[in-house]
Amino acid sequence: MDVWSRFAAQRPGWSLEQPFYTDPTIFELERQLWFPRQWMLMGHVAELPRKGAHIVRSLFNEEVLIVRAGEDDFRAFFNVCTHRGSRICKSDGHANLLVCPYHAWSFRLTGELQSRGEVPEGIDPDALGLHPVPIRVREGVIFCGLDAERLPDPTAALDAITPALQHHGIARTRVLERRSYPTRANWKLVMENFLECYHCRPAHPEYTSVNGHVAVLGARDPDRVAQYQQEVAAWLASCPDKAFNTKIWDPGGIEATAYGVSRTPLGDGRLTQSQDGRPVAPLMGSFAEYDGGETAIRFGRLSFVGGLNDHAILFQIIPRAVDLTDTVMTWLVDASATDIDVERVCWLWEATTSQDKGIVEENAAGVRSGAYRPGPYTDLEPWSAWFIANYLKEMSELAPAAV
Amino acid sequence: MDVWSRFAAQRPGWSLEQPFYTDPTIFELERQLWFPRQWMLMGHVAELPRKGAHIVRSLFNEEVLIVRAGEDDFRAFFNVCTHRGSRICKSDGHANLLVCPYHAWSFRLTGELQSRGEVPEGIDPDALGLHPVPIRVREGVIFCGLDAERLPDPTAALDAITPALQHHGIARTRVLERRSYPTRANWKLVMENFLECYHCRPAHPEYTSVNGHVAVLGARDPDRVAQYQQEVAAWLASCPDKAFNTKIWDPGGIEATAYGVSRTPLGDGRLTQSQDGRPVAPLMGSFAEYDGGETAIRFGRLSFVGGLNDHAILFQIIPRAVDLTDTVMTWLVDASATDIDVERVCWLWEATTSQDKGIVEENAAGVRSGAYRPGPYTDLEPWSAWFIANYLKEMSELAPAAV
Amino acid sequence: MDVWSRFAAQRPGWSLEQPFYTDPTIFELERQLWFPRQWMLMGHVAELPRKGAHIVRSLFNEEVLIVRAGEDDFRAFFNVCTHRGSRICKSDGHANLLVCPYHAWSFRLTGELQSRGEVPEGIDPDALGLHPVPIRVREGVIFCGLDAERLPDPTAALDAITPALQHHGIARTRVLERRSYPTRANWKLVMENFLECYHCRPAHPEYTSVNGHVAVLGARDPDRVAQYQQEVAAWLASCPDKAFNTKIWDPGGIEATAYGVSRTPLGDGRLTQSQDGRPVAPLMGSFAEYDGGETAIRFGRLSFVGGLNDHAILFQIIPRAVDLTDTVMTWLVDASATDIDVERVCWLWEATTSQDKGIVEENAAGVRSGAYRPGPYTDLEPWSAWFIANYLKEMSELAPAAV
Repeated sequence: MDVWSRFAAQRPGWSLEQPFYTDPTIFELERQLWFPRQWMLMGHVAELPRKGAHIVRSLFNEEVLIVRAGEDDFRAFFNVCTHRGSRICKSDGHANLLVCPYHAWSFRLTGELQSRGEVPEGIDPDALGLHPVPIRVREGVIFCGLDAERLPDPTAALDAITPALQHHGIARTRVLERRSYPTRANWKLVMENFLECYHCRPAHPEYTSVNGHVAVLGARDPDRVAQYQQEVAAWLASCPDKAFNTKIWDPGGIEATAYGVSRTPLGDGRLTQSQDGRPVAPLMGSFAEYDGGETAIRFGRLSFVGGLNDHAILFQIIPRAVDLTDTVMTWLVDASATDIDVERVCWLWEATTSQDKGIVEENAAGVRSGAYRPGPYTDLEPWSAWFIANYLKEMSELAPAAV
Repeated sequence: MDVWSRFAAQRPGWSLEQPFYTDPTIFELERQLWFPRQWMLMGHVAELPRKGAHIVRSLFNEEVLIVRAGEDDFRAFFNVCTHRGSRICKSDGHANLLVCPYHAWSFRLTGELQSRGEVPEGIDPDALGLHPVPIRVREGVIFCGLDAERLPDPTAALDAITPALQHHGIARTRVLERRSYPTRANWKLVMENFLECYHCRPAHPEYTSVNGHVAVLGARDPDRVAQYQQEVAAWLASCPDKAFNTKIWDPGGIEATAYGVSRTPLGDGRLTQSQDGRPVAPLMGSFAEYDGGETAIRFGRLSFVGGLNDHAILFQIIPRAVDLTDTVMTWLVDASATDIDVERVCWLWEATTSQDKGIVEENAAGVRSGAYRPGPYTDLEPWSAWFIANYLKEMSELAPAAV
Repeated sequence: MDVWSRFAAQRPGWSLEQPFYTDPTIFELERQLWFPRQWMLMGHVAELPRKGAHIVRSLFNEEVLIVRAGEDDFRAFFNVCTHRGSRICKSDGHANLLVCPYHAWSFRLTGELQSRGEVPEGIDPDALGLHPVPIRVREGVIFCGLDAERLPDPTAALDAITPALQHHGIARTRVLERRSYPTRANWKLVMENFLECYHCRPAHPEYTSVNGHVAVLGARDPDRVAQYQQEVAAWLASCPDKAFNTKIWDPGGIEATAYGVSRTPLGDGRLTQSQDGRPVAPLMGSFAEYDGGETAIRFGRLSFVGGLNDHAILFQIIPRAVDLTDTVMTWLVDASATDIDVERVCWLWEATTSQDKGIVEENAAGVRSGAYRPGPYTDLEPWSAWFIANYLKEMSELAPAAV
């Protein structure tokens, strides 16, 4: 069967057939057509504390160098020298020039070749600057994408999530911790997992203990769900900042970056996502007191921010190869916070993401079997089903036109 | 050259050309056409001591869950959840329901979906039972195969080997030890090695010391061979159970499972295959006293049972990938045996199979050279030659019909 | 684009497009067309001190057994048994017969099958000798190539480098040390690195400190370069053996093995390539006193000899796979030398080659990026540019004729 016919042949509401999770041909199509159109969360400006700081980060299967070229001037480049192609930086650092370790070609923080005298006569040194990577910074959060020609304009999406970022004071945070969870599974299995909490009760005891909604929705009791929804509505109405507590959602598409913001109460009197429900850091942003809520911010298809009253988490889902996906988490606390107990802050998501890595790798192992068949998404996996349906729709729109 | 022409072009009596041992295309043809027609020895019911016990085992490159659903009710399933495809069991265990760790879908020991309330409306829960794997149990030995539609009926072969299994009391044994020897080589190189003892003298000092036939046949002295054959005939005739000592052999084919039983004396007064020739465990089955013989049972192409007077060994040769094959051995002793010295029982085959792993990996290394050419099987490798000839014959019979 | 059109489309004076460094298809073309025509330095007869000694060495992706069959009789064979294809020798050793560990087939040191009685009737044992590998020995240095039919006659090249080998007394050396540096990079990146010293200043502090030319050429000061060239000319003229000090160079081609000899002074009063410039071993060959020079000998495309007054180094660049190349170095000292401090002798090239391994792996990492583009070779990389141009030329000459 022709690969594009296979896209059309997937059964709505069921997980995908095996090749979508295992076939390098389909990953290559995604790499060529879909990835270059996605804005991705890359990190926080606090990782680049002053001019000359640079960080080395993954953007899909590419390596990107993000540089602070000035107080408010952030640049991104492919980490590839224009002379003979060497990687320029192996790790995060600080320098006034980006110097390739091979032949010492040096580049300005803005990408232009500095060591112009190295260039053979007859060749324009201006053509040998670093290859730029599209970058946007909003409220301290850094976003990049692979292809300026094909990326949608993210402005509307950035504008939409800005009030939530501001309320959480994301611009005035520092990085407490950054951890990576490389997962031997296709990125769509990682996303399907990330987007549903049906598995939380069996697989995430810590998450279930902290988040009131898990037990309610898992019980499948309409009365209890209705009661819970009333409780949430009452909690949302209690918030002084109505706009902040109003759910927004735009599904986006090939030509527009998706975004969403929603808030839910943790419940049970918990103030934050710590083991005992008690604070782990100073209040952030506009919070004058604890409201015990969690803010979920979605940007694009693969980037998320989780905002608690006293800390926040950046989530990156990074497809690396057909069977390898990194989940990277960055924990933020207020820039002024001192004496923070890192393990207390990281407790929930360290446990949950480690568990998810294991779960998704077991999922991938089963999907590799010849006996695997697509299965039905339940009513507790609506976002996973939506994500897959949307993926099929967008890929089909990107298919080369039939002759 | 077209791949099927290559099958026809192999020189009879010589080892195969390189691609048969190294080319993923040929392995894929074997996986599609030949493997699904093979019954494979999987283990012993003693590994599943009571209802609810389950074991996770390899069947070619698939993972199979074998379950004791009742006193005499053994089931096998692909280890894949019908919801989203996760592996269900990571290791051997015991449970009254098979519960997937991902979303806690549960299945009865007979495979039906138990948690029917999880299934979305409009979808038949009966269609979401576990995918069954064909299974047969005979005298405590468990056999499975991949494809019910294409597997031959194994009844005649099972009937034929039953007297030997009974004589050795295999049904009333327990598992003393189970060891796996993953070998970086094509499965046909493992089989060619397994089926000849020409290499025993140079490569297996322990095996040579224990088995009288090695030195005799290796010497290539017709008089000595004739004398040895008379000794064996006399030994066979001395046995009270004539039927048991009579050699049987059916080469099988695409539509029939091969089988064979033959007995030989160890010689030199040895009672069993131990280092000193003395017993390592209580007599098994119908043996009233030691007769110092070894029973070789063949079932299908890749499964073997070795029966001594006081223990037995199950051999599985498991093709995993074009360049990876597992040899798995399971040592059995009488169910009532206690205080057994495991290393004394395993001594011979632990040494021999470890040596074979090394030998076959060196063979595979040489076969990967561009200078490798097929070589002639000698008169001391008749079963290897036969195996390869039969493999070529069966594959050719399975080739898609020419247009 | 057709692969051969891609060869024609490369921009002269710029590094190659990505597929030349990463695409297995192009490596396979090189393996089929180019590698079999290259003579390769394999080692030194001192590694085979007496009749019956054998060494196991890499020749591209093949393993070769080099055997001393007599006082002056060196043979090479593919390390593959003609019976069933096993590797014969796992490591260097000594034996009067080469005995395969699998079935003990034995071969004479000259390759003929010794154990002729093993061969089935009707098959000619003479056809089952080991597969020979072309071999030449000159002044103690061993050279092999894969394919007798396609290798050029190396005699002219061997004759040309013989005076330099003799002057350094290479025939009367012993092996002090042999080290391998497997590098995760395409062999052409390793060669481009090996053939230029533009990177020495940024990347090789030890090499730069020892070799006067690095600082001079790197400074790009025409006056200083001219002065340096006068100094070199004066040093060359001071040498009593004019022929030895005269630079020779033949670029070779498909039908002729390249060769070259050139000499340069280390400078700064250094006598040899040691950390302090002082001797590390007794004078070798015809040197009656230290002249402080270094002799660079090139043979073929991938083999080099570095001659100092008191030691010498054999360099082998061995392509193994599209992304794996071994650099092997063998340090030689006078056969009579005793009490040598190995680390003092190896100091410079151990440091330099370890650094090069890291540099070239970073280069390869960058070249794998989708943002990699060919870059211009500078005037300090003339040999790298020449090597690549010559590679393209030779491959194009070897392309199957267009229809």
